[in-house]
Amino acid sequence: MTDESVEQEQTHELPRDEAVDVDTLIAERDEYLDHLRRVAADFENYRKRTAREQENLVARAAERLVRELLPVLDDLERALEAAEEHEEAKLEEGVRLVHRRLEEALRKEGLEEVPTDGLFDPHLHEALLAQPAEAESGTILEVLQKGYRLGDRVVRPARVMVAE
Amino acid sequence: MTDESVEQEQTHELPRDEAVDVDTLIAERDEYLDHLRRVAADFENYRKRTAREQENLVARAAERLVRELLPVLDDLERALEAAEEHEEAKLEEGVRLVHRRLEEALRKEGLEEVPTDGLFDPHLHEALLAQPAEAESGTILEVLQKGYRLGDRVVRPARVMVAE
Repeated sequence: MTDESVEQEQTHELPRDEAVDVDTLIAERDEYLDHLRRVAADFENYRKRTAREQENLVARAAERLVRELLPVLDDLERALEAAEEHEEAKLEEGVRLVHRRLEEALRKEGLEEVPTDGLFDPHLHEALLAQPAEAESGTILEVLQKGYRLGDRVVRPARVMVAE
Repeated sequence: MTDESVEQEQTHELPRDEAVDVDTLIAERDEYLDHLRRVAADFENYRKRTAREQENLVARAAERLVRELLPVLDDLERALEAAEEHEEAKLEEGVRLVHRRLEEALRKEGLEEVPTDGLFDPHLHEALLAQPAEAESGTILEVLQKGYRLGDRVVRPARVMVAE
């Protein structure tokens, strides 16, 4: 809205003819000043609103994941109770449930395992060990610790053993 | 900066004397228009930059917590391996570790348990059951499910049994 009206004023002619009407000039000058004040006030309000919004966004982004994790925490506490009662089957079942729920919550956030089939890639993997092998040099022989990425960002490279 | 210069222009005199110099008027008008264009362009750039920043902020806010949860996921997987090997003591120890780490990660995000000692408070608690008791009416007799808050926000009320 603001930009469009400024755009229009850019195509305005600015006559430098001395015979120009003083009243017209004053009207134009006042109109620009008035418009300038409104744009500046809008800008200031926008800046304040955005600062508040950003605080909220950050708080909410973490809150969503925290909410998803509450049932995981509940299930873990139930599993611990089962451990205290020496109910081994229940404990094991509980741990499986916790694992599934935590994986699910993290997948919803966009977390994915780093692929490790194929050749070593320094953007995705960290080679902890190299070992002589029949496989092509650089082939991943074993995953020592899983790696993860979140969208395009590798949050943790996979730690691997590679063929020399 | 922008606001200050607008402020200065607001204290400017705007003479309506017919004898006013046309050149001065034109200069003033052109200056306001020029200033208006700059403020509008700054505003537009700010708007674009903020949109990008907000996307980033949201992505990063979740990323911090996700990073904290990776070791929890690792420990859970190790606990599951112990379960498969029927190493009960190791499984139990693993679950305790997972619980401690998850609690710690959530506490770092600002998660706190809702207090349940004392009287029922509808802002913090949800009464699932009421039972005749010697205690004062509204006293919390038992916590059926823990409640949590994140800063000032109750993300889940505690589910409780109260005295009638």
